[in-house]
Amino acid sequence: MLYFGKVEVHDPFIAFGASGKKITVQNSLEFGRVKNTSDFDTVLPIEKWHDLARSRYGQQAGIAEIIATVTQKHHLKVFRVPAEFPAGLYVKLQALGLRLDIVEGSLFPEREIKTATEIAAIQKGNRLCSVGYTVAESVLRAAKVKGRTLIFQGLPLTSERLRFLIETAIKEQGGDAHDTIVAGGDQACDPHERGTGPLRPHELIVIDIFPRVMKVGYHGDMTRTYLKGRPREAQRRIVATVRKAQLLALGMTRVGVDGRNIHQAVCDFFVNEGYKTRREKYGSVGYFHGTGHGLGLAVHDVGRIGPTSYILKSGSVMTIEPGLYYPGLGGCRWEDAVQVGSGPAKLLSHHPYRWEIF
Amino acid sequence: MLYFGKVEVHDPFIAFGASGKKITVQNSLEFGRVKNTSDFDTVLPIEKWHDLARSRYGQQAGIAEIIATVTQKHHLKVFRVPAEFPAGLYVKLQALGLRLDIVEGSLFPEREIKTATEIAAIQKGNRLCSVGYTVAESVLRAAKVKGRTLIFQGLPLTSERLRFLIETAIKEQGGDAHDTIVAGGDQACDPHERGTGPLRPHELIVIDIFPRVMKVGYHGDMTRTYLKGRPREAQRRIVATVRKAQLLALGMTRVGVDGRNIHQAVCDFFVNEGYKTRREKYGSVGYFHGTGHGLGLAVHDVGRIGPTSYILKSGSVMTIEPGLYYPGLGGCRWEDAVQVGSGPAKLLSHHPYRWEIF
Repeated sequence: MLYFGKVEVHDPFIAFGASGKKITVQNSLEFGRVKNTSDFDTVLPIEKWHDLARSRYGQQAGIAEIIATVTQKHHLKVFRVPAEFPAGLYVKLQALGLRLDIVEGSLFPEREIKTATEIAAIQKGNRLCSVGYTVAESVLRAAKVKGRTLIFQGLPLTSERLRFLIETAIKEQGGDAHDTIVAGGDQACDPHERGTGPLRPHELIVIDIFPRVMKVGYHGDMTRTYLKGRPREAQRRIVATVRKAQLLALGMTRVGVDGRNIHQAVCDFFVNEGYKTRREKYGSVGYFHGTGHGLGLAVHDVGRIGPTSYILKSGSVMTIEPGLYYPGLGGCRWEDAVQVGSGPAKLLSHHPYRWEIF
Repeated sequence: MLYFGKVEVHDPFIAFGASGKKITVQNSLEFGRVKNTSDFDTVLPIEKWHDLARSRYGQQAGIAEIIATVTQKHHLKVFRVPAEFPAGLYVKLQALGLRLDIVEGSLFPEREIKTATEIAAIQKGNRLCSVGYTVAESVLRAAKVKGRTLIFQGLPLTSERLRFLIETAIKEQGGDAHDTIVAGGDQACDPHERGTGPLRPHELIVIDIFPRVMKVGYHGDMTRTYLKGRPREAQRRIVATVRKAQLLALGMTRVGVDGRNIHQAVCDFFVNEGYKTRREKYGSVGYFHGTGHGLGLAVHDVGRIGPTSYILKSGSVMTIEPGLYYPGLGGCRWEDAVQVGSGPAKLLSHHPYRWEIF
């Protein structure tokens, strides 16, 4: 809805395009705002069309009958709908005589290619990530190592507290960051674990931030890995290897390349460097997630650089985020976002940093 | 997924129940966390089942073929799916020989009835709302009236700034509040407008907070209306009338009652008090939203107290939130949450307050 109608709507909605015009049906609660601020050519009041649908289909008329009434009035019968279109409505609308063709992939394939305005919005999202890393770095720098604890402003530094400080700084700058990953030690070996409890010195800490720029709805998405204290050689090596893998993948990222080949190159590189991937009883170790994904209005937008074939398109925005995860050693991930083009991929995130913090 | 499997999963997932057992198929990224922390009896690795599906259906095998392979292996052929089940997958699975029966309403009707643990979680959510109102009140109290501006700590007080202070305080207490409505004057007449720019003295300010308790996933949802400065008589009257309407609705809320009758009683009360509802060119004025909705894992959970028939169930949780909106006068809404029972509804939100702040 944000892409098609340029307006944010939180509840389910009716919207369609016909002959280059955009039409939506809205209840009184949304009517004024959508009418005044959206990209729709026509905003219809659902109450009036519900009355019409009742007079035609009877008192039980619901959303399907409203849609049938509106579309008949507009002489429309055949629609393209996305694969995620609700099955219940799909069945009812077909029974009411509409023809719905389910589109594989995105209903708006052009959405994958970003305009200059969209690129600027994603860059803004990544600047918000950088705001978060700056906070994290200053907190980790100020924290004191006391045995197995980090003390910050007199209290033990926890994942929750550092997450709060990061997310608050981002909120202050107009972003909404939640579920930010601040995971230390073995917690980071589960890449979707957000992190809880005390952060430990001398352990790798993965921080993955993916804020939404509230004004425009686009996201940033970056990951950095830190260590407060003294790294072991194995930790240094894992960080250096992940970074090399990222640079390898970034170097391969350009229009026409199959993402599967980039992903395979990263997998091969890790194996050659001695980092094996194994599926174990309670999960996997090594490298067991995709190398990247599309980024935009959704954090996980169209496109995946992973084991499945996917040809990179000019103007699309992808993250590149290899990582390695070994319980006992910890996890490390390094993520940036780029715009794909015919030359070297253009970095849309920028946060040079020192991962070792003394 | 949070309700059925007691685990949060951000990406699309495969999950089903059979013979009282809960089964899910997860990729490596989620496997360990779901296996260790969820309510599932069986967690299957998608990579292995993808291989099996490929050997059976060919290299192009995708999610539908994986589901077909897993369910055949478990000797399952008939499934109940929710109306929001993706239409694309619905069509493919039927073609692969599964029978999918679309369920009207919730797939888990028992979800509407809240357990004691769920009630406690919703109360916690509402306590987070109260934290937000406490912040709002102290900021409005401290703010100085300077002409048409409110000055707080030397700077004009805006919707954005007050929202930031409210949401940050809630975040500090373990909640995630975003899109909080802090809308003054005519902005509040569009009930979904979040509010932007300077807050004005002597104008009604609607604050609607619906935070998620991050640990458990349940929400609070409350609304209060404030005025900093000196209210006009018409403003006093609108606030008093909305509050009376809320008490009227709260008094009617009990098991077996049709929500439509509660909503109608509120509508009639407003009309009798001289507050008419009209649909105008750019939206409606008066009372043009529902009187309440279910509250739980979703902010808008199953159940609506509005113009459509809906019988209140024992143990369900509903908001009661009448409001009035007239450009020139402003908006006012008062929202609390209750648990429905055979006696008077039990309030699950608690924040007595003075709406006039001097």
